[in-house]
Amino acid sequence: MNLTVYLAGEIHSTWRDEIKQKVAALNLPIHFVGPMENHDRSDNIGEEILGKQPSAIFKDAAASNFNNLRTEILMKKADLVIALFGEKYKQWNTAMDASAAVAYGKPLILIRSEDHHHALKELSRKANATVETVDQAIKALHYILE
Amino acid sequence: MNLTVYLAGEIHSTWRDEIKQKVAALNLPIHFVGPMENHDRSDNIGEEILGKQPSAIFKDAAASNFNNLRTEILMKKADLVIALFGEKYKQWNTAMDASAAVAYGKPLILIRSEDHHHALKELSRKANATVETVDQAIKALHYILE
Amino acid sequence: MNLTVYLAGEIHSTWRDEIKQKVAALNLPIHFVGPMENHDRSDNIGEEILGKQPSAIFKDAAASNFNNLRTEILMKKADLVIALFGEKYKQWNTAMDASAAVAYGKPLILIRSEDHHHALKELSRKANATVETVDQAIKALHYILE
Amino acid sequence: MNLTVYLAGEIHSTWRDEIKQKVAALNLPIHFVGPMENHDRSDNIGEEILGKQPSAIFKDAAASNFNNLRTEILMKKADLVIALFGEKYKQWNTAMDASAAVAYGKPLILIRSEDHHHALKELSRKANATVETVDQAIKALHYILE
Amino acid sequence: MNLTVYLAGEIHSTWRDEIKQKVAALNLPIHFVGPMENHDRSDNIGEEILGKQPSAIFKDAAASNFNNLRTEILMKKADLVIALFGEKYKQWNTAMDASAAVAYGKPLILIRSEDHHHALKELSRKANATVETVDQAIKALHYILE
Amino acid sequence: MNLTVYLAGEIHSTWRDEIKQKVAALNLPIHFVGPMENHDRSDNIGEEILGKQPSAIFKDAAASNFNNLRTEILMKKADLVIALFGEKYKQWNTAMDASAAVAYGKPLILIRSEDHHHALKELSRKANATVETVDQAIKALHYILE
Amino acid sequence: MNLTVYLAGEIHSTWRDEIKQKVAALNLPIHFVGPMENHDRSDNIGEEILGKQPSAIFKDAAASNFNNLRTEILMKKADLVIALFGEKYKQWNTAMDASAAVAYGKPLILIRSEDHHHALKELSRKANATVETVDQAIKALHYILE
Amino acid sequence: MNLTVYLAGEIHSTWRDEIKQKVAALNLPIHFVGPMENHDRSDNIGEEILGKQPSAIFKDAAASNFNNLRTEILMKKADLVIALFGEKYKQWNTAMDASAAVAYGKPLILIRSEDHHHALKELSRKANATVETVDQAIKALHYILE
Repeated sequence: MNLTVYLAGEIHSTWRDEIKQKVAALNLPIHFVGPMENHDRSDNIGEEILGKQPSAIFKDAAASNFNNLRTEILMKKADLVIALFGEKYKQWNTAMDASAAVAYGKPLILIRSEDHHHALKELSRKANATVETVDQAIKALHYILE
Repeated sequence: MNLTVYLAGEIHSTWRDEIKQKVAALNLPIHFVGPMENHDRSDNIGEEILGKQPSAIFKDAAASNFNNLRTEILMKKADLVIALFGEKYKQWNTAMDASAAVAYGKPLILIRSEDHHHALKELSRKANATVETVDQAIKALHYILE
Repeated sequence: MNLTVYLAGEIHSTWRDEIKQKVAALNLPIHFVGPMENHDRSDNIGEEILGKQPSAIFKDAAASNFNNLRTEILMKKADLVIALFGEKYKQWNTAMDASAAVAYGKPLILIRSEDHHHALKELSRKANATVETVDQAIKALHYILE
Repeated sequence: MNLTVYLAGEIHSTWRDEIKQKVAALNLPIHFVGPMENHDRSDNIGEEILGKQPSAIFKDAAASNFNNLRTEILMKKADLVIALFGEKYKQWNTAMDASAAVAYGKPLILIRSEDHHHALKELSRKANATVETVDQAIKALHYILE
Repeated sequence: MNLTVYLAGEIHSTWRDEIKQKVAALNLPIHFVGPMENHDRSDNIGEEILGKQPSAIFKDAAASNFNNLRTEILMKKADLVIALFGEKYKQWNTAMDASAAVAYGKPLILIRSEDHHHALKELSRKANATVETVDQAIKALHYILE
Repeated sequence: MNLTVYLAGEIHSTWRDEIKQKVAALNLPIHFVGPMENHDRSDNIGEEILGKQPSAIFKDAAASNFNNLRTEILMKKADLVIALFGEKYKQWNTAMDASAAVAYGKPLILIRSEDHHHALKELSRKANATVETVDQAIKALHYILE
Repeated sequence: MNLTVYLAGEIHSTWRDEIKQKVAALNLPIHFVGPMENHDRSDNIGEEILGKQPSAIFKDAAASNFNNLRTEILMKKADLVIALFGEKYKQWNTAMDASAAVAYGKPLILIRSEDHHHALKELSRKANATVETVDQAIKALHYILE
Repeated sequence: MNLTVYLAGEIHSTWRDEIKQKVAALNLPIHFVGPMENHDRSDNIGEEILGKQPSAIFKDAAASNFNNLRTEILMKKADLVIALFGEKYKQWNTAMDASAAVAYGKPLILIRSEDHHHALKELSRKANATVETVDQAIKALHYILE
């Protein structure tokens, strides 16, 4: 029983590397996918493909096409989505990806620090489980595959 | 042809009253529904129904049950969802409600100031339309019913 | 905004009458539907329609056709399902109806005494909300329609 | 043609081992998945991952997150669900898992002793087939793959 | 609680009139819809709309467009489908309409004489209930609305 | 039994008026909806709501938001879609609306002159029926409601 | 690109062997599945698993459980369904399986002699294609994989 | 992570070969499928399988059966659809295939020259991304798999 897990959310820390290394150390048969983690490339992908856009807003609109496309294709191939809310930024993308997981019928684990519990209470209720650390998420992955 | 419109998002300003009054002045046959706008009542509803909870986190978890229940029932009765992102707070609920609209197959209009264009670019791409003001959203409602 | 609510579960007490009277006293625009509450008629409906069956098992199989048919038609017309687990019997029907509500995309409130919390913990997690008394459920109905 | 079969229900007897051994002896190309069978671990998993909870009710709520998550992921990978109702306990989880199978569009076989025929009559009608013994379920698996 | 019921199947007898009259006598709030009952008009509708076709096969193909269109529109508006298998003809249309009811998520009652029990055993298993007479079907309608 | 019919396709002729007048003369209980028929308004609606766009391409992108929004809301309220392909223009919108009807599970009638039979053969196969004139489509509407 | 094809319909002739041999001779990468072809075993499977039933009707009901179970599991694994209507019997099962294919979103080819064109005209319209011989169906399989 | 991509649209140029060669040169793990590219064979396939038809219209109707069948089977196996609108012909098939991709829940990239931007503006809005050249589409494929 192999699992494919989509790692949504914060791209400014190394949590994806941490989760991959720890899962590998546990020999769990899990394959990870996720968004473009190079922030600049993610922001610029619209202009890289379509050329210079007339303003920052249109540059963003162009980039969102390809970022949503990548997310949709990879998330649809996943058995589970794990979404991490970090400490900084608005992270509406993370909220959107977590909700998209629910919409696609994908089970969902949220990782968020206790600080965020109030702001995330309704989304947390829609997730299958909410944890506070990467290690707790890994315990959940382990439990599924025992 | 009557429409039911769910007004998601910010509850700390009077944008819902504004939209209702202007739509009434235009004689558009639109019925509006939306979340609990009394913030304290929304935060306390879990304890009001279930009694004192052991901590702030559990109080929030209890409230989220009834807020999500209300949203789900009312949004499923809507033909269209309009979600407004305000200037303050994380507003992950708004992002979640906007995504839920997409998940339920409900057409979606986002209202957000230009300041938010970067943070909302992917969600904006999933909406049917993104506008910057309540008046623009009303023009869209008018166009649908012409 | 009218709501139709399906009242699933225990048929040996008067909780449906209680909920209807209290909701009427509150002037909430809610219409209630539910299963056959005459237990004998529910058990005998298969033989009443199809005639004498060869054994108790086949009598039950015959009755289940018409009870499931009634439940499916009425539950599909509902905006919300409230399922009450009483103190006695196996009540697998109640669990099944609660699960069917989830399957049909109907929001779900469970009512169960604290005694049942362990046995119902997974089903409770799938419901939108779990309460312990009819009065708490009525508060939730009121909150939805405020 | 390989099949994946989810074995839902009673975790206090050895019926899963029996079915696996007999299917292996028949050389049927079937892979089995199912819930956590270590009852204590299943009850404690919430606290093992999230830490001490404020009461038994909250401990159960925490555990249900991870048990439902495991069930959802594994059941969605199955071609067939077999649910066994044992002699003891309320077994509302079994009823819920059987109903979830129907909701996910998974064919369903119930195993229950004749004693349970009345209490399970409506759920039995929703299953593809109801049998009384593990050996009868194995005959059905054999028939599918002939 | 009003119901709309689609009456599928045999068009060469008066069973639809019988069911409508008896339901009216019982004051049940049921509205009936169904296929074109004028057999010639049903067979000729393709040529009546599209003009002369090159052969009997193409005449049939043309008619099937409009008969399927009518069935799909009206069946989708129904809460329940009742399909009667008569004594004569192949009645593959009846089998198809009964299966379409299942596909559209519409509850289904079959009416067939005991003679047909073997040929219809698998389809009967997919219906919510199978009865032998119009009067039995009316008892079922009555039971739903009690 | 009232029907709502969405009239997709060509907006440069008076076929919608013709169909409405003839259906009214027949006293058929049909309510019609459809796209914005004022071509300039349809092309300019993006700039009317969002303000001046940086180029013709972005003006079109802006307009498409509101035209698709209108179509989606109104088509989802329809029981049937009729799509007319005229003699001029690419009419890819008409093909898209016809396909969207199929996607939303809405029955579909195509109206196209014989000249278009080759180019439309695959789409025609997906429609419930293809006719050549408005009068033929009206005969089909009449047949559904007989 | 491998295909799995479910061969529904007549079990009293050798058409399945013919299609398998010819497809093998063409080296097409197609795997075939289908119903139990031993008619007696298909009729008796209910009693073989569940034991002696009280009458022929109940024997049939028991068998239908396991035949429908087998069909549902195997058909859901198929990319395409081919259904052959033979010259004899009512073949309502074939009509039901063909309709189930449509319900499951599986493309469908019907094989029927010209004699059956009138009785099958509506079902034929729902199929992707209708042919008269096994050889024509094989040409269609070849065309898909060119 | 392998991807299957359906290449819809124009069959009179060599864009499919170009995309396949360039993707192979990049070592991207992508498998391509698509429609019959031999135009005559596509037009004649109905008569090749079913024999001579009574007129050009019926010849087209016969061909559309098998072309739609091929498209449906192969598109359902795809993770992504790329649809290219060329310079000539009505290309309603391309619009239909692009819309079918949306209907099947398949992510969609449009390729069209700037000349077509006005005629395709609404369909473009439904696609995940619209580009002008094959090279831009390849950049998008690369981005998904980085």
